[in-house]
Amino acid sequence: MFAIDRTAPTPLADQIELRLRELIAGGLLPAAARLLSIRQLAAQLAVSPNTVVTAYDRLMALGLIESRGTAGYFVRETRRAELPDAAALEAGEEQEGVWLAQQANDQRAGVLLASSGALPPSWLEDAVPAAAVQRGLARASAGMASRCPPQGLPELRERLAMVLRGIGIAVDAGRILTTYGGTHAIDLICRAFLQPGDTVLVEDPGYFLIFDRLRKDGVRIVPIQRRPDGLDLAQLEAASVEHRPRLLFIQTVLHNPTGWSSTAANLHKVLMLAEQYGFLIAEDDVQGHFHPGHATRLASLSGLDRVIYYSSFCKALSPALRIGYMAADQTLLKALMREKIYSVLTTPALNEYVMLEVLAAGRWRKHLDRLNAKLLAARHASARQLTQAGLLLDHPGEGGLFLWASVPADVDLNLLVQDAYRNKILLVRGATFSADKQADAHIRFNVAFSQQPRLADYLRERLQSLAGARAALGRLNLRQLTVP
Amino acid sequence: MFAIDRTAPTPLADQIELRLRELIAGGLLPAAARLLSIRQLAAQLAVSPNTVVTAYDRLMALGLIESRGTAGYFVRETRRAELPDAAALEAGEEQEGVWLAQQANDQRAGVLLASSGALPPSWLEDAVPAAAVQRGLARASAGMASRCPPQGLPELRERLAMVLRGIGIAVDAGRILTTYGGTHAIDLICRAFLQPGDTVLVEDPGYFLIFDRLRKDGVRIVPIQRRPDGLDLAQLEAASVEHRPRLLFIQTVLHNPTGWSSTAANLHKVLMLAEQYGFLIAEDDVQGHFHPGHATRLASLSGLDRVIYYSSFCKALSPALRIGYMAADQTLLKALMREKIYSVLTTPALNEYVMLEVLAAGRWRKHLDRLNAKLLAARHASARQLTQAGLLLDHPGEGGLFLWASVPADVDLNLLVQDAYRNKILLVRGATFSADKQADAHIRFNVAFSQQPRLADYLRERLQSLAGARAALGRLNLRQLTVP
Repeated sequence: MFAIDRTAPTPLADQIELRLRELIAGGLLPAAARLLSIRQLAAQLAVSPNTVVTAYDRLMALGLIESRGTAGYFVRETRRAELPDAAALEAGEEQEGVWLAQQANDQRAGVLLASSGALPPSWLEDAVPAAAVQRGLARASAGMASRCPPQGLPELRERLAMVLRGIGIAVDAGRILTTYGGTHAIDLICRAFLQPGDTVLVEDPGYFLIFDRLRKDGVRIVPIQRRPDGLDLAQLEAASVEHRPRLLFIQTVLHNPTGWSSTAANLHKVLMLAEQYGFLIAEDDVQGHFHPGHATRLASLSGLDRVIYYSSFCKALSPALRIGYMAADQTLLKALMREKIYSVLTTPALNEYVMLEVLAAGRWRKHLDRLNAKLLAARHASARQLTQAGLLLDHPGEGGLFLWASVPADVDLNLLVQDAYRNKILLVRGATFSADKQADAHIRFNVAFSQQPRLADYLRERLQSLAGARAALGRLNLRQLTVP
Repeated sequence: MFAIDRTAPTPLADQIELRLRELIAGGLLPAAARLLSIRQLAAQLAVSPNTVVTAYDRLMALGLIESRGTAGYFVRETRRAELPDAAALEAGEEQEGVWLAQQANDQRAGVLLASSGALPPSWLEDAVPAAAVQRGLARASAGMASRCPPQGLPELRERLAMVLRGIGIAVDAGRILTTYGGTHAIDLICRAFLQPGDTVLVEDPGYFLIFDRLRKDGVRIVPIQRRPDGLDLAQLEAASVEHRPRLLFIQTVLHNPTGWSSTAANLHKVLMLAEQYGFLIAEDDVQGHFHPGHATRLASLSGLDRVIYYSSFCKALSPALRIGYMAADQTLLKALMREKIYSVLTTPALNEYVMLEVLAAGRWRKHLDRLNAKLLAARHASARQLTQAGLLLDHPGEGGLFLWASVPADVDLNLLVQDAYRNKILLVRGATFSADKQADAHIRFNVAFSQQPRLADYLRERLQSLAGARAALGRLNLRQLTVP
């Protein structure tokens, strides 16, 4: 059924729980499937029956399986009810950003998250080692009764400053603010520096939650095209002249959804334009940890002049900790801290102590190296399979989570995405990442999920049958017919 | 020097660290004071020298003490630099709300936080037992790699629904949303339901962070006077007629800063007015855990019709977890969840699993009973001492953290507060809690801190000398002179 690793620090019951969750998520244990009995599974894995009981109990608490008395344990069907939401999402009936974020639990419904924005849980399993958490808790235990200073634990900010200096950003702990992740950083920037009627430049394609967030606040969005080497500089200059923007949101390294980075020359020009036209830059680096080599960032070129930098550990370390961080000059940082106090008062001391321990124990760098090696292999495998299945991959990017691949010109992407979802494969259309929701032939693929043969098999078969249908339609000269 | 408790679950090193922090915070170990040597303290407490080394190491990491080689360990002075901020606060040079919140670390500077909004850390020391955290972590460990659903862990929401049903609020897990505490709940409500130009009713006196938060968003505030039995109903009706408000913020139980609750009759009338004039009610219950008996709440009367309820565990359990929760009907909850996604994406699974464990282990109720007994004793002691020192206490309230006492009519409260701060006692003026910052003769006292004789001694001496000065002024007939 699956293997467990007796040498790993993760307890055996946790490993069993996680593997079963993945089997259920991947559809290999479909709804109503009967699980092995406790005795059978314990014998097969050579563990104590109590260990299996613990794992099954947790899966029941999660609502993933149910006990039917003497008949045994069965995978539950309840999560099915959530499918229509995602369908509504793709039909454009709901604001896509909000619904996409809510689909985090799709995984439980056996949907293959080929376009997911996150890593599979098993990839991060030992990222926060139990021992580090224990030591962090010991340090925090007296602190459990104390509130964390709104700027963040001083000791953690010292460590974060070291992390930033390690990627060439000259900063001290006084210019760092902790947050609840990248989304919170975006929110603080919007609150601190934007007013209704302001103009903000965004990347196109780009992160959809920013588009929705800005529009809701009455901020005007001007999209600038993103290219494999960075922003389109001619568009950026024209927009700066015409719109006098207040701020630019940019993800310089391993950009979401394309996986592209930026050249130093491109970034230098972006900074010159910001200086010339007087706008701030919010540099999003939440994907940066995945960069396999040395990437150039705006904050390393400018030394935080005009640049508000933010990143998080949510993607590369643990989404369960919700720790992000920002760096900015003193004046900007004070305004951001004020908004942090207004929005959440402060961040939890518990999480910051655990994070401090992970960084202090030196596990972070090692974890990242291992993770990035795995990502690179997945990247090659996914790119090969997707290309063989008929997708087009012009600029594969330098690393990270994403591949930005397009379908042949005459495939109706909306129909494909809906059909894929009926087949329990979540694909997200390029239009989702467009500030104006314009049609786009691309799909964002997450390389960690996209190596699964089920995806390539599905795409190959479907693209071939669509091509066949096109050929047939061509012979019949019935071009107005919709391809099924 | 101090005692440690060998039967408590808190490790000895943690106890020593916490006691020393409190001695430093309370000014009993002033800046530059020399600590006992490691050997001396270990002998005195009959613990291993290693235990003392651990505690001293942590205090050094916190910047509270320093080692001067063979001369020994000394209390550091560095935090002094933060005093001017609080002085500026009280001089009205800075927005009070923001700065007050930042004064959380005042405690390290030896300031007696007589007006604090929180309990002393030692009172919450064992509230989150290490064993519960361990079990919570074990449950979370597979989950450390997974994102928490934006609405909150289903299992935790089930438990929260039980807590709410326990105080008479009929609700199920589907109508609960977890937050990062009460401030985050306020922020979500503002984001979801208010627009610039809207009118919102607030209590006067009330929670200052709400006033600042609303004004910043361009929302018009109409203050309604708070009385010992609830809101002033005549004012509430007049304001409803005149301003057609969108929403009312109210803290029904153990109101901050007065400590007053609300009668069922008063709350019934508030609900009738909300129905008649069509406004929403945001019911803040973050103090409610401290109520020693059975209090009536709007949400228990109305069954969430028109009422958005929120509370948190930050005050009564642990400020280091940052866990709050809201309850509202499905439509409102959906809008709130959307704003949660926009602002922070989700809350951390780690914290929610730990909280789940605390609730599941049944420790919460026991902790609360112990805490409330202690609070009640502190309340009686503080009320007695403050009254004897010359403060006036018209309506002592039913329990909780606060006493709302006033100074004699001709005492200049601003001067008193400034003088107290020079004497390392933080008092917060009534005006801080007024929506219009109007002068008010009250001070908010925190009963847990206000039993310290240093406070009563200071107030008695100062009020007497002010009375003496007044008498002298009366004799000299120089009324225009400022009382020093």
